[in-house]
Formats: sequence, C-alpha cells, structure tokens
Amino acid sequence: MYVGIDLGGTNIAAGVVDDNGKILCQASLPTKADRGAEAIAKDMAELAKRVIADSGLTEKDIKAIGVGSPGSVVNSTGTIAYSNNINMKNFPLGDIIRSYVDLPVNLENDANAAAYGEYAINGKGSECFVFITLGTGVGGGVIIDGKLFRGFNGCGAELGHTVIEHGGEQCTCGRKGCWEAYASVTALIRQTKEAMEKNPESLMHALAEKEGKVSGRTAFDAAKQGDSAAQEVVDQYIRYVADGIVNMVNTFQPTKIVIGGGISKEGDYLLNPIREFVKANDYNKYLEKTEIEIATLFNDAGIIGAALAAKSEIE
Amino acid sequence: MYVGIDLGGTNIAAGVVDDNGKILCQASLPTKADRGAEAIAKDMAELAKRVIADSGLTEKDIKAIGVGSPGSVVNSTGTIAYSNNINMKNFPLGDIIRSYVDLPVNLENDANAAAYGEYAINGKGSECFVFITLGTGVGGGVIIDGKLFRGFNGCGAELGHTVIEHGGEQCTCGRKGCWEAYASVTALIRQTKEAMEKNPESLMHALAEKEGKVSGRTAFDAAKQGDSAAQEVVDQYIRYVADGIVNMVNTFQPTKIVIGGGISKEGDYLLNPIREFVKANDYNKYLEKTEIEIATLFNDAGIIGAALAAKSEIE
Repeated sequence: MYVGIDLGGTNIAAGVVDDNGKILCQASLPTKADRGAEAIAKDMAELAKRVIADSGLTEKDIKAIGVGSPGSVVNSTGTIAYSNNINMKNFPLGDIIRSYVDLPVNLENDANAAAYGEYAINGKGSECFVFITLGTGVGGGVIIDGKLFRGFNGCGAELGHTVIEHGGEQCTCGRKGCWEAYASVTALIRQTKEAMEKNPESLMHALAEKEGKVSGRTAFDAAKQGDSAAQEVVDQYIRYVADGIVNMVNTFQPTKIVIGGGISKEGDYLLNPIREFVKANDYNKYLEKTEIEIATLFNDAGIIGAALAAKSEIE
Repeated sequence: MYVGIDLGGTNIAAGVVDDNGKILCQASLPTKADRGAEAIAKDMAELAKRVIADSGLTEKDIKAIGVGSPGSVVNSTGTIAYSNNINMKNFPLGDIIRSYVDLPVNLENDANAAAYGEYAINGKGSECFVFITLGTGVGGGVIIDGKLFRGFNGCGAELGHTVIEHGGEQCTCGRKGCWEAYASVTALIRQTKEAMEKNPESLMHALAEKEGKVSGRTAFDAAKQGDSAAQEVVDQYIRYVADGIVNMVNTFQPTKIVIGGGISKEGDYLLNPIREFVKANDYNKYLEKTEIEIATLFNDAGIIGAALAAKSEIE
C-alpha cells in the first residue's frame, strides 16, 4: 500500500493506493500557494496521515509516499529545485514530509508522475511509453524500459517546451513558438477568441455567452453543431497537436502514446484526426507503428502515478 | 578487435578497430547503389576480409562486425527494413554478410552508429548523450544509460524529422517544416542562394564563382570577411540549428550534446552562438546544464561507431 500526493497550484490531493493502482481513499486541501513552502509541506504530511487513518490503516501498512509536484524536481535528492506556482526554490520537500511521517518519500515532476500512472495502468510492457497532457500547459512524460526518463539533471521530458513554430507565439517559458503555446487549452482559448473576433456570426459567441466565458470546449461544441468558423479552429488546433505528436513519434518511436488533460475528454473526435495525421506524417513507413490512445485515469493520474512511481523506486 | 563498416550511398568504408576505438587499418569501395542489395552485401563482406588481412590478422582475432547503414534498421533481426538510397527493403543484411564471413554481425542505423562512436570516445559516463549531425540531412542518435536508444521498432531518434516550423519548407520525409529542412547543409545552400538573389552586390557571388558552386561554406566564408548579407544568412541558420538543439535539451536534458557533420567544421564560430542561444532558451534554469561540444571523429565516426556499437552489443 502507498500514499500518492498530487501537489497542484490550487489543491493538494492525496490518496491511499494499492499495489494495482486502485485508490482506496482520498482527500484534498487547498494549497494556498502564496504561503511558505514549509506550511505546504506540513499540510501534505498531515493529509497523508489523514488518508491513511481514513482507510483504517496505520503507517506500518504503507511502504512509501509518492509526490508529484510542478516544477523542476530532483528525484535523487528529494528536492524541488524550482517551482513557479508554489514558490519553492531548492526546497528539500522529501526530508520535510519525512520529518512528520516516517516513511520513504519519492518525488517526481507532476507530469512525470501522471505519465507513470498511465503507463502502469495502460502501458505495462511498453518498451517506450510517452504521455502527453493537454491542459493549461502541455506536459509530458516518458517511460523507457519501465523506468521514468528524467534526463541527467531530473528536468527532462519537457515535451511541451519544444518549438513547433520558429519565432512564433510567446510561451510562458520564455521561448517563442513552443508546442505548449499552440496545443494547450490556453492556446485553444486564444485561437477561439481570435476566430470569434473575425466571425461575429459564429455560433461560438452564443455558446461562450451561455457558459459565461470562452473555454476549451467553445470551438469543439460549436464545430459539432456545424459551425464552420469553429470547425476551422478545431481543425487547425488538431493539426498543431498532431504535428507535435509526430515529433514525439519520430523522436521516440514509442510503443504507445497516451493523451491526457482536459482536451482529451473530446475522445475519438480528437483522437481519430490525430491518428490519421500521424499515419500520414510518421517517418516510419515500414515498421510497426506507435499506438495512440486517450488517457483513462484523468484527475486520478496524479495520485495513482505518484504512488506507483514510489512503488517502482523502492522495488 | 572489431570490424566497423560504414555503408553510404557513395562508398562502403570498412576498418579494423581496437577496443579503444582506434582504427588500425581501413579501406573503401564504391557502393554502386543502383546494383542489387546482394552484390553490395557481398562487397561489404569482402571488404571486411580485406581489412582483416591487411591488418595482419585473421577472422579469429575479430570478435564481431558492426555495420552502420542508412535507412530503417532492425537491430534485433539484422534486417534493413527500408533504405531509400541503397535500394534495400526487408533485406537480411546481417545474415548475408555472415554467410561470407562467419562472425557475429551487428546492424545499426548510420546516425546511431556515429552517435555511439562519439559517445564511446567523447561521452563515456554520460547518463544521456545526444549526437546531432548537420550534413546533407540532419541525423541524430541518443544514448541512454550507455545503450543506444532505438525506440520499440528500431526507427527512433530521427531527430532531424521533428518540425520546427509548422507548415514550413517541404522535407524529403514528406512532412513540412522539419528541422532538417532548415538546419541541413542542403537547407543552408538554399538559404544562401535566396540571399544571393536578393543581394547581387554580396561577396557570396564571388566566393561561389571561385568555388564553382554555392556550398555550405559560401555564407560562412563571406560573413567572416564582413559581408552583411552573408552574416544575416549565417545568423538565421544558426538560430534554426540552435532552436532545434534547445528542443533536444528540453526533451532529453542530456549530459552532453555533440554536433557533427560538415557544418561542424566551423568550430567555435558555430558553437559559441549556439551555446548562447541554448543558455537563454533552455527550460532548465536552475539545475546543472547540458554541455554542448563539436564532434571529434568526423569521417571516422561511422567505422568507429559501428565497431564499438557491435562491441557493446556482444559484451
């Protein structure tokens, strides 16, 4: 039995996870990201204790605590080198949690933890497995021979921060033209707003008004109802996503690529054109092809992945 | 002792290589790529025998033959799935060479073999090592934990075929906007010709006339002599190269990236602005940084790499 903790900018979520990746019990707290890192670390430990107790277990039943955290995470030392949205710099998060709960703590970058969760549940046995999350940003994780690939300094697999448009849109990372700046929900909302401005008659206006805002669903929903301007937004957005996915295929030739994050809820509507685009553009035309699937763990990927990554580290 | 064979579209080069990657003796033959694959394979075996004899050795002194070949190579079966420029399709090259010389044969993609050579000589101990070759095309190879990374089907690490300009220049692979279409020698020549057309007064015209053609050196040489149009070509070309290198850094966070191929002979003139660009654009701003170096094996990388990759496979 393991505890998985998903540290986010808004909430800290924790759960007790069994060896098969099933969540037995979970709970969450607001992160209150603007307070000190020490207080957040203490709350993470308290939340771990709470879900252990709520499961009717004691610390002796738990083999390790796994944490997924945003930012640059150094797994080997249990340190957050830097995290933008929770104000941590060279912060020994592992040691501090351990000072409250005497269990081994394994730290991973949040996208890596989610990737490991999807791998453990949907990709077991894949020689190479790539996870892409299309959310506020575009995150990625790579598992090679069953091990999380982190690069020599722990900061690898920032797949959203690969440029697909040289000199293009400004990215939050400082570069111009990153995949994230075209394929994230944030980018889709920008693209939707631009199209709305040019197409005052589009159904997107009515849908956005009904929802109270332009969201990542506005263009998809309007396109499904036959709106041509929305269809153009969706088609171009999918080409951006798929072009980046072909980059990942040509780089890794993974056994499987799994797509998660908010946009992945579009299911086959998103997946089918991506598969077609990849088939037409993959460098490999003669050997077995990468499978492309939609993620299945959604919001639980963080907790499950953090727990199972900890399991794989202590085994 | 090993034999390394570098199979190219123009020449077959082979050499006897010692355990430290030193070539003891080498020889080459024209590939005559338009003849049948069988005849090419036979010549490769004959050339191996010749360099063994020329070194004063016998087959008993050789532990294995390593081959680097263009195309999609299946290492596990010793088969060329497909090669564009030597007309091989599902061709059991390993078995056929072995029918003439009774030694283990290890097949690698040529860029992977060269990558392994550079790794073995310049990157030993690197947890992750990336090799980029800027030649007629842009090739790549990745070594993770001392092992060549090939993807699940053997066709991975086609780093030149990652798009850096969505919908951009046509690439030979069928996609639009690949890194290869901006950072290869072929691309540099195209960029140079475009600038020459716009700048009839540029020194590039005189240099090209002297050389009898526009080459990958034309813009670099003219820029070094103060030609401003040439300097613009070089600056933009280097930004294309460097943008792709940052993509590789953010993807792999390798311990080291080594740049080879014809353009790498520009040395520090190429390397210094790349290092500056990478420093400014790397996602990792707080952890140890990837080292970036120029390759040292040049034309011998293929023979040495093929031999040492074979050595690592049989060890």
